[in-house]
Amino acid sequence: MTKLWLIYKTVAKETDKTEKKNNMGKQNNNVKDEKFDTREAVKEIADINADFPAWYTDVVIKTKLVDYGPIKGTMVIRPYGYAIWENIQREMNNRFKATGHENAYFPLLIPYSFFLKEAEHVEGFAPEVAIVTHAGGEELAEKLVIRPTSETIICHMYSKWVQSYRDLPLLINQWANIVRWEKTTRPFLRTSEFLWQEGHTLHANAQEAIDETILILNLYEEFCKNVLAMPVIAGKKTQKEKFAGAIDTYSIEAMMQDGKSLQSGTTHYFGTRFTEAFDIKFQDVDKTHKYAYESSWGTSTRLIGALIMAHGDARGLCLPPKVAPIQAVIIPIATHKPGVTEAAASIKMQLEKAGVRVKLDDSDERPGWKFNEYELKGVPLRIELGPKDLENGVATLSRRDKAGEKFVVSLDEMGEKTPLLLGDIHENMYQKALLFMQSRTETVYDMEGLRAAMEGGKFALAMWCGEVGCEDKVKAELSATSRNMPFDQTPVGDKCVCCGGKAKRKIFFAKAY
Amino acid sequence: MTKLWLIYKTVAKETDKTEKKNNMGKQNNNVKDEKFDTREAVKEIADINADFPAWYTDVVIKTKLVDYGPIKGTMVIRPYGYAIWENIQREMNNRFKATGHENAYFPLLIPYSFFLKEAEHVEGFAPEVAIVTHAGGEELAEKLVIRPTSETIICHMYSKWVQSYRDLPLLINQWANIVRWEKTTRPFLRTSEFLWQEGHTLHANAQEAIDETILILNLYEEFCKNVLAMPVIAGKKTQKEKFAGAIDTYSIEAMMQDGKSLQSGTTHYFGTRFTEAFDIKFQDVDKTHKYAYESSWGTSTRLIGALIMAHGDARGLCLPPKVAPIQAVIIPIATHKPGVTEAAASIKMQLEKAGVRVKLDDSDERPGWKFNEYELKGVPLRIELGPKDLENGVATLSRRDKAGEKFVVSLDEMGEKTPLLLGDIHENMYQKALLFMQSRTETVYDMEGLRAAMEGGKFALAMWCGEVGCEDKVKAELSATSRNMPFDQTPVGDKCVCCGGKAKRKIFFAKAY
Repeated sequence: MTKLWLIYKTVAKETDKTEKKNNMGKQNNNVKDEKFDTREAVKEIADINADFPAWYTDVVIKTKLVDYGPIKGTMVIRPYGYAIWENIQREMNNRFKATGHENAYFPLLIPYSFFLKEAEHVEGFAPEVAIVTHAGGEELAEKLVIRPTSETIICHMYSKWVQSYRDLPLLINQWANIVRWEKTTRPFLRTSEFLWQEGHTLHANAQEAIDETILILNLYEEFCKNVLAMPVIAGKKTQKEKFAGAIDTYSIEAMMQDGKSLQSGTTHYFGTRFTEAFDIKFQDVDKTHKYAYESSWGTSTRLIGALIMAHGDARGLCLPPKVAPIQAVIIPIATHKPGVTEAAASIKMQLEKAGVRVKLDDSDERPGWKFNEYELKGVPLRIELGPKDLENGVATLSRRDKAGEKFVVSLDEMGEKTPLLLGDIHENMYQKALLFMQSRTETVYDMEGLRAAMEGGKFALAMWCGEVGCEDKVKAELSATSRNMPFDQTPVGDKCVCCGGKAKRKIFFAKAY
Repeated sequence: MTKLWLIYKTVAKETDKTEKKNNMGKQNNNVKDEKFDTREAVKEIADINADFPAWYTDVVIKTKLVDYGPIKGTMVIRPYGYAIWENIQREMNNRFKATGHENAYFPLLIPYSFFLKEAEHVEGFAPEVAIVTHAGGEELAEKLVIRPTSETIICHMYSKWVQSYRDLPLLINQWANIVRWEKTTRPFLRTSEFLWQEGHTLHANAQEAIDETILILNLYEEFCKNVLAMPVIAGKKTQKEKFAGAIDTYSIEAMMQDGKSLQSGTTHYFGTRFTEAFDIKFQDVDKTHKYAYESSWGTSTRLIGALIMAHGDARGLCLPPKVAPIQAVIIPIATHKPGVTEAAASIKMQLEKAGVRVKLDDSDERPGWKFNEYELKGVPLRIELGPKDLENGVATLSRRDKAGEKFVVSLDEMGEKTPLLLGDIHENMYQKALLFMQSRTETVYDMEGLRAAMEGGKFALAMWCGEVGCEDKVKAELSATSRNMPFDQTPVGDKCVCCGGKAKRKIFFAKAY
């Protein structure tokens, strides 16, 4: 995997260089006159069925979602990618605020000693932190860690802020950049620096903290369904797979089109592990002093990778309308013909009024080039407008989610119908992804069945004895991991898929990103 | 100044500790019954006229805008402060996007070698950078700098992205955290880490890049006026005071209530300094290859410090309605009386529908405590509602910007009148700040006049010969700096305020943050 990835990366980079050279040098075939000799060639992407990783790299680079940063494993989120992130942020913020959470900002740099306070936490994160030793021209007395996650520094502050049960619950979220020095990286999926949100909450008792953990997991699941059109499986992680320092971790897992699972969000119940380490006590109603109970939860720019691999196809990106930077693109044909330009501008105005993110592309590229470009970029709706359309008082529409299908909409109904169409595209994308996941999820009863499922690029539902030894064996033999224990625990048997021993939990296995 | 500041910081911290101890321990006088023994005492702040720095610290800490981070010079932006930042971001983003700019995100860590490419730039920033030497458990081959500003890494990426005149102008902005290891720090004003936006644009020729620099300076000025209700003086910095690496720097300067100037935003024209260093060339219409012209510009969380010191008063914060997290607070009186709770809820609904950020405080604190608390927190409009009001079909309103003035508004007009009142509060705050600045701005003709102005906490308009020696002398003798050369260059004399030599430019001096 890693090696393949590196090869693709190299190929992609060389392709870029070649393109650049072509653009800077001699004319290409699409050129009408010398004014346009630098315009872009139609971009080609790898075959999604033959080589999924190469397809992914091509898509994220060639649609200008992202580029490689100068330091190994870092990425630059380009405007087209960042606009998706802004839409994700807005939708998430609406949900966080509706459930009583507030945003704040905590420092990037954490004293190394803070990490030592919770044993599992330091063990989990120490190997991948970046360390600041010098600042302001001097060597620092204590080295500082660039946050790989903010539990420790936030708990340090919470210990100053919480005195009474009246200060609880404390429901704070942070949008921030995170640094984890990863060995193998891929844009959006695993990078040395990424953007995320991390919620950190304190509660007066264990049940409230657990309820928060489940509330946010449900919020993430609903967000993936209603914003990203992406079905997920929600459940509890095993002890082997939980977050470093948590008592319990929950996750949502989404199926990518190569059958692998992508962990798309996690929530953690900490009990009093960190609040004891950081002395976060409150005076309760009964006057006694107690440690607060804690949860944390996060999603990241990984979600962009998830939606790309959940929805993309042979022609490139296929963006869910709720986060698409451009929801509809208007492409006027034969703009020199009377009325075309004016009608295109009028559609644009109607759509903007209806709250649609619309782009009118009246540049001098060929219409065919534009069609390819916006298909590649995954724009949900294309609106063509030519002299013929104009005569008939219509525009010709194509949906990105339904290849080859064209239909007309009356010009004066564009403002009204476009939002409905975008809603329908969302629903269709969700149903398609759901059917795909269902069709590639199998119940298995023994290691042979599990092996076949993993080799076939499927999710496997199975019973499990609860022993880490069986998880280890599955990982060693099949390169697959337990993803989570779904909330629906209706048994599918009574024997462990691995050892045949008495089954305790239903679990799902998959290869994973 | 520095010493005083440190003393106040210590006092403030000790006050905090005392408060905490009181809260955790014995009851205070406001307690009705034991259930409420942890509720807060009315907060006291230093006298704004006697001790402006202490007033500032008290206000930012006690209103929970901000707290000190564990590492010297860092701050935690608490929810009430961060909500102001979110409002600033939204208003700025609207303006950036309306003028054709897009957001993106570039890596936090910059190879040290990048800094060496532009000589003035490295000289300016090297002394205050934080350096990463280890990551992922290993010593790095090349040390990395945590961005103190992103010109270098952004130019590195731009050199990959720009090939043709068709790629220009490139108009990208980034919201990010920045680290500069400062010796003397103050929350919002100067901190080791802060949040900001930095725009970096490329253009096909010098004039377009200069136009962009002025366009954004005007945008900042308009933003300060129409969002922060804060007048500023816009102009060009002298060569002594410009940004490290720029050809020209422009700034907006605002007057704080101690008469000092706070640089609230800067825009820079770079010419081809960085584009030559980073080899950013494009093929122009005429087929020749040229270096692109560049601008950059930024504002930061400093703006929060600016609006606090521009508008606050003896009773605490006074927030401009456009960025106030709570624009109106409803305080019901005698909620046990029939109808009060329902009427308060109905006002809340009306205001939310009208797009007002409203809070209904029906907690069991005393009304007097609430009045003090929301005055301290600078909420623009207070809406009291008691049984008497209800009988008369009105609510009793108080404006934060007009102390002691109360008036009634009919209950069924609250939704309609509140936005108008907020608009009027904004306008009144702006006019008040403008009058203050005008009344404390003097034209001076010689060093004696300049000295008197600086000692009197004023802005001084003066003529200047253009020699850095005179700036140095003013700084050495009066601890004041040239802030900028205002765009209105109508001469006020013909002799340099300092040396008496032939005057070349009009300039303004002030003590500054």
